[in-house]
Amino acid sequence: MNYKITGDENITFNNNAFYCIGTGRMGLALQKQYYEQLKLVQEKIGFEHIRGHGLFHNDMAIYREFQPGVPEFGPHAWEGRDEKKVQVEYNWTYLDMVMDSYKELHIKPFIELGFMPKQLASGDNTIFYWKGNTTPPNNYDRWANLIKATLQHLMDRYGTEEVVTWPVEVWNEPNLPGFWKDANMEEYFKLYDVSSRAVKEVDKRFKVGGPAVCGGTDKEWIKAFLEFVRKNKCPLDFVSRHHYTTEFPNYDGHYGYPKLHPKTKCFEQLDSTRGIVDSFKEFKGMDINVTEFNTSYIPNAPLHDMNLNAAYIALMLSTFGDNHKSYSYWTFGDIFEEGGVPYTPFHGGFGLVANGLIPKPTFWTFAFYKKLTKSYEKCVLKTPECIVTKCKDGSFRGIAWNIDDKLSGKEITLNLTLPMETKENVLITELVDEEVCNPLKVWHDMGEPANPSQDELELLRTSAQPFVKTERCKNKVSLNLKENAVCYFEIKAAPIKSDRGYTYGRLN
Amino acid sequence: MNYKITGDENITFNNNAFYCIGTGRMGLALQKQYYEQLKLVQEKIGFEHIRGHGLFHNDMAIYREFQPGVPEFGPHAWEGRDEKKVQVEYNWTYLDMVMDSYKELHIKPFIELGFMPKQLASGDNTIFYWKGNTTPPNNYDRWANLIKATLQHLMDRYGTEEVVTWPVEVWNEPNLPGFWKDANMEEYFKLYDVSSRAVKEVDKRFKVGGPAVCGGTDKEWIKAFLEFVRKNKCPLDFVSRHHYTTEFPNYDGHYGYPKLHPKTKCFEQLDSTRGIVDSFKEFKGMDINVTEFNTSYIPNAPLHDMNLNAAYIALMLSTFGDNHKSYSYWTFGDIFEEGGVPYTPFHGGFGLVANGLIPKPTFWTFAFYKKLTKSYEKCVLKTPECIVTKCKDGSFRGIAWNIDDKLSGKEITLNLTLPMETKENVLITELVDEEVCNPLKVWHDMGEPANPSQDELELLRTSAQPFVKTERCKNKVSLNLKENAVCYFEIKAAPIKSDRGYTYGRLN
Amino acid sequence: MNYKITGDENITFNNNAFYCIGTGRMGLALQKQYYEQLKLVQEKIGFEHIRGHGLFHNDMAIYREFQPGVPEFGPHAWEGRDEKKVQVEYNWTYLDMVMDSYKELHIKPFIELGFMPKQLASGDNTIFYWKGNTTPPNNYDRWANLIKATLQHLMDRYGTEEVVTWPVEVWNEPNLPGFWKDANMEEYFKLYDVSSRAVKEVDKRFKVGGPAVCGGTDKEWIKAFLEFVRKNKCPLDFVSRHHYTTEFPNYDGHYGYPKLHPKTKCFEQLDSTRGIVDSFKEFKGMDINVTEFNTSYIPNAPLHDMNLNAAYIALMLSTFGDNHKSYSYWTFGDIFEEGGVPYTPFHGGFGLVANGLIPKPTFWTFAFYKKLTKSYEKCVLKTPECIVTKCKDGSFRGIAWNIDDKLSGKEITLNLTLPMETKENVLITELVDEEVCNPLKVWHDMGEPANPSQDELELLRTSAQPFVKTERCKNKVSLNLKENAVCYFEIKAAPIKSDRGYTYGRLN
Amino acid sequence: MNYKITGDENITFNNNAFYCIGTGRMGLALQKQYYEQLKLVQEKIGFEHIRGHGLFHNDMAIYREFQPGVPEFGPHAWEGRDEKKVQVEYNWTYLDMVMDSYKELHIKPFIELGFMPKQLASGDNTIFYWKGNTTPPNNYDRWANLIKATLQHLMDRYGTEEVVTWPVEVWNEPNLPGFWKDANMEEYFKLYDVSSRAVKEVDKRFKVGGPAVCGGTDKEWIKAFLEFVRKNKCPLDFVSRHHYTTEFPNYDGHYGYPKLHPKTKCFEQLDSTRGIVDSFKEFKGMDINVTEFNTSYIPNAPLHDMNLNAAYIALMLSTFGDNHKSYSYWTFGDIFEEGGVPYTPFHGGFGLVANGLIPKPTFWTFAFYKKLTKSYEKCVLKTPECIVTKCKDGSFRGIAWNIDDKLSGKEITLNLTLPMETKENVLITELVDEEVCNPLKVWHDMGEPANPSQDELELLRTSAQPFVKTERCKNKVSLNLKENAVCYFEIKAAPIKSDRGYTYGRLN
Repeated sequence: MNYKITGDENITFNNNAFYCIGTGRMGLALQKQYYEQLKLVQEKIGFEHIRGHGLFHNDMAIYREFQPGVPEFGPHAWEGRDEKKVQVEYNWTYLDMVMDSYKELHIKPFIELGFMPKQLASGDNTIFYWKGNTTPPNNYDRWANLIKATLQHLMDRYGTEEVVTWPVEVWNEPNLPGFWKDANMEEYFKLYDVSSRAVKEVDKRFKVGGPAVCGGTDKEWIKAFLEFVRKNKCPLDFVSRHHYTTEFPNYDGHYGYPKLHPKTKCFEQLDSTRGIVDSFKEFKGMDINVTEFNTSYIPNAPLHDMNLNAAYIALMLSTFGDNHKSYSYWTFGDIFEEGGVPYTPFHGGFGLVANGLIPKPTFWTFAFYKKLTKSYEKCVLKTPECIVTKCKDGSFRGIAWNIDDKLSGKEITLNLTLPMETKENVLITELVDEEVCNPLKVWHDMGEPANPSQDELELLRTSAQPFVKTERCKNKVSLNLKENAVCYFEIKAAPIKSDRGYTYGRLN
Repeated sequence: MNYKITGDENITFNNNAFYCIGTGRMGLALQKQYYEQLKLVQEKIGFEHIRGHGLFHNDMAIYREFQPGVPEFGPHAWEGRDEKKVQVEYNWTYLDMVMDSYKELHIKPFIELGFMPKQLASGDNTIFYWKGNTTPPNNYDRWANLIKATLQHLMDRYGTEEVVTWPVEVWNEPNLPGFWKDANMEEYFKLYDVSSRAVKEVDKRFKVGGPAVCGGTDKEWIKAFLEFVRKNKCPLDFVSRHHYTTEFPNYDGHYGYPKLHPKTKCFEQLDSTRGIVDSFKEFKGMDINVTEFNTSYIPNAPLHDMNLNAAYIALMLSTFGDNHKSYSYWTFGDIFEEGGVPYTPFHGGFGLVANGLIPKPTFWTFAFYKKLTKSYEKCVLKTPECIVTKCKDGSFRGIAWNIDDKLSGKEITLNLTLPMETKENVLITELVDEEVCNPLKVWHDMGEPANPSQDELELLRTSAQPFVKTERCKNKVSLNLKENAVCYFEIKAAPIKSDRGYTYGRLN
Repeated sequence: MNYKITGDENITFNNNAFYCIGTGRMGLALQKQYYEQLKLVQEKIGFEHIRGHGLFHNDMAIYREFQPGVPEFGPHAWEGRDEKKVQVEYNWTYLDMVMDSYKELHIKPFIELGFMPKQLASGDNTIFYWKGNTTPPNNYDRWANLIKATLQHLMDRYGTEEVVTWPVEVWNEPNLPGFWKDANMEEYFKLYDVSSRAVKEVDKRFKVGGPAVCGGTDKEWIKAFLEFVRKNKCPLDFVSRHHYTTEFPNYDGHYGYPKLHPKTKCFEQLDSTRGIVDSFKEFKGMDINVTEFNTSYIPNAPLHDMNLNAAYIALMLSTFGDNHKSYSYWTFGDIFEEGGVPYTPFHGGFGLVANGLIPKPTFWTFAFYKKLTKSYEKCVLKTPECIVTKCKDGSFRGIAWNIDDKLSGKEITLNLTLPMETKENVLITELVDEEVCNPLKVWHDMGEPANPSQDELELLRTSAQPFVKTERCKNKVSLNLKENAVCYFEIKAAPIKSDRGYTYGRLN
Repeated sequence: MNYKITGDENITFNNNAFYCIGTGRMGLALQKQYYEQLKLVQEKIGFEHIRGHGLFHNDMAIYREFQPGVPEFGPHAWEGRDEKKVQVEYNWTYLDMVMDSYKELHIKPFIELGFMPKQLASGDNTIFYWKGNTTPPNNYDRWANLIKATLQHLMDRYGTEEVVTWPVEVWNEPNLPGFWKDANMEEYFKLYDVSSRAVKEVDKRFKVGGPAVCGGTDKEWIKAFLEFVRKNKCPLDFVSRHHYTTEFPNYDGHYGYPKLHPKTKCFEQLDSTRGIVDSFKEFKGMDINVTEFNTSYIPNAPLHDMNLNAAYIALMLSTFGDNHKSYSYWTFGDIFEEGGVPYTPFHGGFGLVANGLIPKPTFWTFAFYKKLTKSYEKCVLKTPECIVTKCKDGSFRGIAWNIDDKLSGKEITLNLTLPMETKENVLITELVDEEVCNPLKVWHDMGEPANPSQDELELLRTSAQPFVKTERCKNKVSLNLKENAVCYFEIKAAPIKSDRGYTYGRLN
């Protein structure tokens, strides 16, 4: 493919990939390895917000009921319970530890209200290995109080002006029975009503939204949700939903193998939302936050660890911002227990980083898009295989990819002609492909060790770096992309300014 | 080239490359960047001792004379000096800072006694940009006292048992007029006599040696030195000398371009020493410490930064231990001021690490040899292009190189057949060559920036990692080496132990 | 009190306080704050082993059963279970993370085998907020296999020679129904029999022991246990038990207030064990490891945070080693969930360190005893209020305390005369008492904030340092101890060696 | 002394103590220990700018002349020099290292142009142990070019918008012959003229100033300088001078003992400057930057290490901002070589931090003033013994001191009545006095070790922390200050919010 760039182009490109990133449940944020993985992500990429489940899950230990004179434990626990005498107390110990470490890492929460603390739950339905309770509150007043107390505590500790910039979303995927008892729409709307008003009661400046649905019944839910909100005049600052691009997987042992949607249809299931929202005159143009996206929606899809995933996500990021305020990759790391504790460092987890602090290929897709933001002026080329941007200093930066979802081995050659101002330029490329940056293959070749030694981990980390190459160039760039390659490139003026007496390559 | 290894081989290989490493003058060890470079070297390679000049140089501020009632500074300085009333005091402030940081980094000094503090010097001759004084002491008693006080102080601070394991060498390259006034042999012998006795007076267990000569007049000097020692019954625990493998360089501006000795003659100038030492029955078999070696002996030879250097050193390290107790690469890093402060990160410095914390190709040569020590059982193959060792666990490790000192582009293919116990093995290679690990080229392509930005430094560091590759194999290994490649390889049993349900490469 | 020390004394003092330290359940060792607290403890004190519950608890996720073709989750979970077809797999992911961080912190496990993984449990009895299952295995073969697989995995990863030095203890406090179903003695003996043989099957060099009982029925249990072991010829390398020195507490809200045993009876409940063991000729002199001790046995006794606790423990440590191989303070830190997640940094937790990284007074008791080990020669004085030791260099070190369990305010003055060799000495004291090192009081005065800000935490940490004082002395030392003070002191030769011209205290 | 504060007071207090801090010469900023000391200072205090000598000193290696074809070194160095053919090159290697580390530590330079690089010097006059050349340039064009090249390089590397906020001062103390050859006023004015114009040529936004004089001839110099500037229309953005408050010292060995000015006259020698500047209508109200101040102006005055110094500086800081834009304490740390390398950690150096990373009492004076800036609303009391400020949240903060320059032992009691809103308050005090925070005394009592061990250093650091004390209070505060105490205090609302069931001090 050949492209000639004049520099006069100006193509739509909203690079919002760094607004938010997903995470395993909040209780896991106490872990050391979680912190280290997030630290790596923040150093090399840098996200603004982080969103995950489990703020109110039991392991965070926030909510607690008691009644003076009534035993809380033991064989006579709660004998003599009198609802009118029950009191509630809150425990912020773990919440503060988590939020303190987010602050250290320069990332802010995107608050998801959920799941239900056991003492406040109306039933026993749970989801995941870690048993998040997915039933409505047994007492909506106490639920509202919990929300208000939590936000107020955060404002007390981190400053009101700061905390009101943290978006708040009500629950997660209520259109799935697994996540919300019976996927009961009316009950969710009630939850939304109570929750959104509670949030605004604390401070009107909070941005609150929902319904956080996943694909499938998304159309019905979003339409009904907006109608409910309109009718009941609930607060609403943004619409949220999720987006995954694979079919239902085939399962085997601890793993699942889903079929990827064709790359040309990577946004197909998502496309209706903008229209629905805009069809309400009250909500026309309202922000849509895709609060989760990835290829597969299961935490054990080997696909996530593959170069194919990196290339596919590269395509998505090039146009995702066209219609959506934000899109949050699910997730930053592999400390994650929804399907249980992983047995091996590579296990198809959602993370950009594998356990053992190994960046996966998709990590670099994000790191490469981040580089486009530096000194960004405008986008000058966008194709299904690449994006090229112009910087304020006259240089060009771009990313190219070759999605090969059949693993067929086909290659792509990309030829660019660029309007460089001088003839003394350097082309810098950073390449991620199945040969040069494929830690999954290295791990496989090693015998797929479940518990790599420190030496093996170091080797895996070294093998997981992009391959850097430079060459002197004038105004033409030719990139050869092997299967599932993602390649960052940068062309800039680089006159050779040798020091006195220095001749590169001279021997004697 | 084809080799079949049976496993019954047992070839001489004394891998002593990590006994000692060279350094810029001791005063530079106070610097933060020096510390960081040494830290990197210790983490990835790990040397036991460190040797450099300038222990007694003025910037260490150890030696100071004064006389009560006589001004030390100003227009009347030292008016009324009376030698009998002059007193000496010692200042250990900087010495302790240096030694404390060595201790933190788990490296011990190889003490070189020199150069002459200004107040103790008999003349004004100096060497280097930093003006090390190279004249004999004006008072040999005070010189002996300085040595004794220094060793005693070190023992008080770091423990006697520890400090007596630090070797002591008397002066540096006295056979050059630049390093020792008039290259006066008699005077050096006197210095050696006084110094070696002073050392033993502190503790007999110290190992002391000399004459630390460089090539040229080495034969005459070593012979005469041993005769002197024998005759005068001086203490002597080892003989020391230096070894460089280039001709006198062509100079241009800040740089020098020396011709490298043919690889077949890389030890030619060194070979006579063993014979001379062994010709003295008193000294037969005595340890020879090559207390400096490198290709070029100038700190501004671009050769040091090149892949050619890495390949050439790889050859040297394979046989250097055959005749020598130790051999100390000159130097670990590029914080070094002998020729002045470098203008650019790559400037042909001696260091394994360039300024900006960038490992050079030769860094990896040492790191690769270090890997051979892990679980080492014996050497099974040694050729001018490779070395292969067997580990206690039945695996094999090796290093191969392709010295191309004409930059002709010729390639080498190495085919090995190995006595593997099973058919399920992995071959791991870590490659350093002009394409995959050549930060000098990357820096050149960038325009040879004298002051790279933090982003540019990070790119340089990423480009300076070996290229890791793995493949499944049975018992045959084929390595293709491009010009000036150095390749570490490891073959070991690696049965695939997939987790339940995991199939590598499966899509759906 | 006045004591004159001649230097000829030689008093029994086995300072084994650092052999082992207790910890919250193993799953908590994944946490970042846990790591930081343990790091502080290791840096300032330094223990050899660490012991806690929960190695096999569900959150470690080690043990998992499955049966091919039978669903593990969902409404039809385990339908068609056929015991003969059930297979077991092990997951070492979290175990390795924990053990890797122990290794980083230079501490080794003291392995406690327990509690029961849910799938291997014979019942639903649990203990603690975190619901450790306390029932016997439903299958003793699988239990034995779990032990063997675990030890084997540890040996594979950390080296056989290393791992066999980790002691192994069977279960925890089986003489309490809370910890072991029905406190069934016969069943425990069976568990011990199977477990101890499994351990030795892996490697005979492992040291294995029990019965890890607490006070109360300890006499009966230990006697019966030893008879069982003798009769059945079980492996047994040490006897273990626990020791706490308070009565049953009064409870109020989240807290409990126990009465402390009088200091003169601090070992009363423990004293019978040595006699019982020695009454068996086969076990006479066998090591007794007190694998838990503290004042109170509840994790919410404000006593633990008080200076009184520090003084009381100081007394215990002075004689604990007389009859016991080791004694393990329960616990190092306050990341601990037995009674739920603490609401406030000071909450009467067992830890030496409060959450927020604040050392408690008792932390310093251990730090002070550690200082006695440095250059230790012998003990020259031991009273109920102090201990004094002589160092190899002729200096003296000691600890003095003033246990005031009525908070009566009484003071103690200790006068020592020491056989110093010269008259120019320094006395260094490090004092911990209710005025100078009492972070609990500082926190109380601040209003008992549940969630101190970073500034408040820094203040708390600063307030939690011992008060250092020095004075010039000859051979007499006088120490005044306020209520519940613990004072470390050191007297050593310190001739004033002023630098030339320096006069301390001179103004002009 | 008794004071009643109503809260309606509003007293002038410009707390500018953190605008700038002094440093040893720039070449020392390469040192690791320098970095660590500055890091401690920045973490606990935090200054905005840093100013020191030696930007152009030889050890920074910035300026270099050469002439093609003419040897630069050796016996024939510069033979054939032809001024018209001489070229200049600049070396930014070390400058960048220094500036990069300043950036890491969040401190910006206050640029001092000086001293003279050897090749640009017109004579041999030098100052200090490190021999800074103090002669005018031999070529003013090259001097101007050096300034322009340096500023341009800094802007290229650190950003134009950033670098133009770095003030520029021309030379240092030209009114002393030691610092400027013959203290030649005309020559300095020429230097200022050329330099200030060079600065503005690079960017008009730079703030440039002088004449950086010390006391003595300051009146004559400042007046003549302003006349010169007015007449020649030189750029001038601020007037700068220095201020020290001691007499000429008595010397003995390595030390000097100066008499301190009475505290009531601590600004006496400085007071004329404001009037002189304001007497020029063109310069009326112009910023006066006191670019150096301290008690003694010698780097070996034991006074600097004493509590007296801390108390005296506390007084100065309370009113220094009344007439001066900024005042820069000379210096942050004791890596400093003007009088040679110090022999001992305490040696009367200027630093806030002693070598070994020990904060001196004066360090806390600055740390305490920094605390006043947090949530500062206004000053409500200022006396010769204390300052009290009100915070936006209704709490009060203050500092009190007791200067006892006779070491007479007199004490001061300060009684304050404050308009607290509630009765439940806490008083927090942090005390530095000769008993509780006096590392100099601890070091003396230890025998004044020149080279303390790591254990001794740790003890010294622990002894160098302020003594923290809290007490519950209503609206009255009583502080007792022993000789040379400096006490920070804070009174704020602190209602006791005990957790459920918690009773402080309850035993059982």
